[in-house]
Amino acid sequence: MSEYRAPTRDMEFALRSLAGFDEMAKACNYEDASPDVVAAILEEAAKFAGNAIAPLNRSGDETGVQLDEGRCVQTPEGFKEAYQQYIEGGWAGLQFDAEQGGQALPFSLAIPVQEMIHAANMAWGLCPLLSQGATEALSENADEPLKQMLLPKMISGEWTGTMNLTEPQSGSDLATIRTQARPEGDHYRITGQKIFITWGEHDMAENIVHLVLARLPYAPAGVKGISLFAVPKFIPGADGNPGERNDCYALSLEHKMGIHASPTCVMSYGENGGALGYLVGQENQGLACMFTMMNNARLTVGLQGVAVSERALQMARSYVAERIQGTAPGDLEPSPIVRHPDVRRMMMTMKALTEAGRGLAYSGCVAVDYAKHAELDAEQRSYYQRRADLLTPLVKGWCTEIAQEVTSLAVQCHGGMGFIEETGVAQLYRDARILPIYEGTNGIQALDLIGRKTIRDRGLAMQELLADMRATAEAASTVSALDEQRVQAFEQSIQQLEEALQLVLDSSANEHFVGSSAFNFLMLTSTVTAAWLMLKATLLASRQSTGEPGDEFLTARQVTTHFFVDHILPRCAGYLASVKAGEDSIMALPETTL
Amino acid sequence: MSEYRAPTRDMEFALRSLAGFDEMAKACNYEDASPDVVAAILEEAAKFAGNAIAPLNRSGDETGVQLDEGRCVQTPEGFKEAYQQYIEGGWAGLQFDAEQGGQALPFSLAIPVQEMIHAANMAWGLCPLLSQGATEALSENADEPLKQMLLPKMISGEWTGTMNLTEPQSGSDLATIRTQARPEGDHYRITGQKIFITWGEHDMAENIVHLVLARLPYAPAGVKGISLFAVPKFIPGADGNPGERNDCYALSLEHKMGIHASPTCVMSYGENGGALGYLVGQENQGLACMFTMMNNARLTVGLQGVAVSERALQMARSYVAERIQGTAPGDLEPSPIVRHPDVRRMMMTMKALTEAGRGLAYSGCVAVDYAKHAELDAEQRSYYQRRADLLTPLVKGWCTEIAQEVTSLAVQCHGGMGFIEETGVAQLYRDARILPIYEGTNGIQALDLIGRKTIRDRGLAMQELLADMRATAEAASTVSALDEQRVQAFEQSIQQLEEALQLVLDSSANEHFVGSSAFNFLMLTSTVTAAWLMLKATLLASRQSTGEPGDEFLTARQVTTHFFVDHILPRCAGYLASVKAGEDSIMALPETTL
Repeated sequence: MSEYRAPTRDMEFALRSLAGFDEMAKACNYEDASPDVVAAILEEAAKFAGNAIAPLNRSGDETGVQLDEGRCVQTPEGFKEAYQQYIEGGWAGLQFDAEQGGQALPFSLAIPVQEMIHAANMAWGLCPLLSQGATEALSENADEPLKQMLLPKMISGEWTGTMNLTEPQSGSDLATIRTQARPEGDHYRITGQKIFITWGEHDMAENIVHLVLARLPYAPAGVKGISLFAVPKFIPGADGNPGERNDCYALSLEHKMGIHASPTCVMSYGENGGALGYLVGQENQGLACMFTMMNNARLTVGLQGVAVSERALQMARSYVAERIQGTAPGDLEPSPIVRHPDVRRMMMTMKALTEAGRGLAYSGCVAVDYAKHAELDAEQRSYYQRRADLLTPLVKGWCTEIAQEVTSLAVQCHGGMGFIEETGVAQLYRDARILPIYEGTNGIQALDLIGRKTIRDRGLAMQELLADMRATAEAASTVSALDEQRVQAFEQSIQQLEEALQLVLDSSANEHFVGSSAFNFLMLTSTVTAAWLMLKATLLASRQSTGEPGDEFLTARQVTTHFFVDHILPRCAGYLASVKAGEDSIMALPETTL
Repeated sequence: MSEYRAPTRDMEFALRSLAGFDEMAKACNYEDASPDVVAAILEEAAKFAGNAIAPLNRSGDETGVQLDEGRCVQTPEGFKEAYQQYIEGGWAGLQFDAEQGGQALPFSLAIPVQEMIHAANMAWGLCPLLSQGATEALSENADEPLKQMLLPKMISGEWTGTMNLTEPQSGSDLATIRTQARPEGDHYRITGQKIFITWGEHDMAENIVHLVLARLPYAPAGVKGISLFAVPKFIPGADGNPGERNDCYALSLEHKMGIHASPTCVMSYGENGGALGYLVGQENQGLACMFTMMNNARLTVGLQGVAVSERALQMARSYVAERIQGTAPGDLEPSPIVRHPDVRRMMMTMKALTEAGRGLAYSGCVAVDYAKHAELDAEQRSYYQRRADLLTPLVKGWCTEIAQEVTSLAVQCHGGMGFIEETGVAQLYRDARILPIYEGTNGIQALDLIGRKTIRDRGLAMQELLADMRATAEAASTVSALDEQRVQAFEQSIQQLEEALQLVLDSSANEHFVGSSAFNFLMLTSTVTAAWLMLKATLLASRQSTGEPGDEFLTARQVTTHFFVDHILPRCAGYLASVKAGEDSIMALPETTL
């Protein structure tokens, strides 16, 4: 199995040039986020991910996690020590407020770091992923005393956080949540059961802060009656340290197809009278609070898709370079299989999708940074908020879909060895399969895009994006790195997206049409957006290129764009045809004859 | 987890009407293969698969197989007993000669039976799959004494068979095989190591006949120096029963992502002086002998794709009918998720792909029956041989690709439960991942289609297929079940295929083009062929339909065709664009910057 080497050159290019981090840092007065600092952080993170986390990936998959008789979860060997290094490196607090101990760097600068962690070990990386989401939700919604109680330890990484939404009867639809909260003095008592709680219990940190959606006795029905509570595993004492054990326990762990080293818990609250919880935000405003956490978690789950794709690409790359089989065109002796055109097709597909996914994810995260910074005026902020909102379902949806394709191609490049667990690539394929499901299934992402992000604003955010695309197409037509035919292919895909957008807006009252077309509309929008970013990358690369040795990276980025336009972009015709076909044959059959 | 119920109605329709079994049986004088017999066989097989094999699928996956200290493989509980039932039911000999104890029924009649077995339990089904292939190879290539020694026990199912091709350095390219055979009187001694030997050792049968590719001391280099040998685990004595233990052993078992209950063995031949082997066919003609086995095995691996898709569809169907979540358009209360359009889109995709795959696989197998029957004249036989040869890579390639999509959609329909092993659908997803790899990777299938099946005969077989498609398009335009727009969409896809074919023939000297375009050419050809069969099915269904209750099946088949034309067929535009783009951006990057 090959080592993981963080692609720092591509990450830096994708972040600073393509996603516009440097401009954002300037506009938002992130004086500390200089190119040197970015480079230093990426370099250090690459060492941490490659040396401390990646070597635990396969062993963690084999060992898995165990719930012991004391209702504690034992993580695989080495996980705890790696987590200690994560705390010591200050990785947990990169993007959080300095007053709580964070480093006050942009959110988007934490993104390549997180990508490295997930590529190295997705199961391990889920613990920080959830913690970061919980920390954000508390930062933005908790009152000062609660922040003081919880945030310093969470931002240092000493305590971790979880998201408790799902119940057996309540998955995509949170209106049916049953977990109860009753007021008791300055706090609440929580009773109920939650399922699918990632890292709900473990031995890597001294305390775990559960963010739990629950319903007050006097709450209105449905989603408007949900409140958010912070339920620490150990209740912090006056000294700020973990005190009394709270009434919340892991009941059991799921046996999953992948991410074996990530404990997925059934959590029980209030077996002995009620777990002590602190209200986060206002009563009955829990869903909005949770969404501040979920939106960024959706971006980082999309990022996991990029990460696992990168790791799969690296594994395939080293295998196809070494494996000798058959004689490739033009060769006289048996060749490394990378020289066979069909293997090359698979490698280029993986490479193009991964680079495009990275560009998309990083761009979404830079928009988040813009949107929350008061240095900009209100109009600018709301422009970037719309952009971030629009890109979020694309990042979560498309980057996790391509992760299925990329990890599958990586298995295929390995031939029979790909199916053998010791090779390691099968684990990536298994791990990746959760990505289109959790943090809102991709069906939910599609409905979010077509409904809240397109129909609700009558296509405003989409039109803004289309305007950017058209500007890039125009600029591209003047650059020698892109021939006329490929620029025209991109322009045609813009028209396909415009056609779909118009149809969606015209048919917005037809719920069956909207639901039937949502997924293909997501795939179409994402693919054209990804192509746009690939073209942008080519413009930037051709500008930066000096033609000297060392420029191979910039040349390769241009070829990858050609490949994307030639072999990925044509999928748009199929997506558009599906959108146009609408609900007719989808809804025609009675349920009983399906 | 839902039970497996064989879709006998669709199987009968796909076999007898769509694939033209009834006509074939008449033309080839299969007097015993009457509609009653077909129905009876399907009904009995459905019971066997559903009751005896399906219940062992999940437990087999959990238990897996073990190699014990006596170098024997222990199969999971119940496997042996189920195999005994398989022998007793006479299932092993359906399509083999009566003089060796077979039932002399058409090969294609065994196909729905095999589909049921693989749908019920793919890991278990691999044992008969390999045995049937070995039995065929012996039937067609062995001399009389060897047939007498091995076939009766193999046709009864008492002995099983294996295929030993792969060695560590020799996978897709068999030219590099190193296993040695040296003549010794009327037999040979075999020495070497083989890997990835499916069911190479087990406890379900009293003997195992290994068909082994090896090289004679005086053999020419490359594939022209490979011979095929039958190496029984126990050497049959004069009484025909297993005698002395042969010098061949399982060394170890692989840990695989799926089909855990199917032992994948490293086989060692000749640790103690050489395993006794009997030559099958002529010296140095081993590859041709092996291909008689591999061609049908490719069809049955494609059939496994259909089978696992059907099982996944059934699991998803029962889950989405029961799971209540969210309120669907038009509903007033929370709905079973099947009522959500995006879930319906996934279900219809699974259903359409599975039905199309079944039609394709069965059609390929009926062509095999036609081709080998002397009742037809030579011209007819060679016509059907071309058709069978052409369809084989489509069946293997496309039906195993769609199995990835269908099992993945089935996981997705289950939401978070899909990722939990106890649900059962995750196993199908893991099991299915081997299908595009074994029996010739789908990259190899693509090269087979574009090279041996298209370029070599200058498009003759493809033109014959296209003529059939055009005839169906013309017939379809006169039937009310198909509107003009959909018929036109199909006609357009025929033109797309014609365009690709012409380009391939014109560019056949450019090996980089051929290799780069092969996979998309396979997907394009398969998708248009599948659409053709769906349209044919609609014509047949509308003809058979009486409009009375009980006809829901025939109505549904028509709607599924509409869905296929609306939502699957448009993918052809992307495949064609990729074929046309050729090798340019695929081969442009130097290997070092991939």
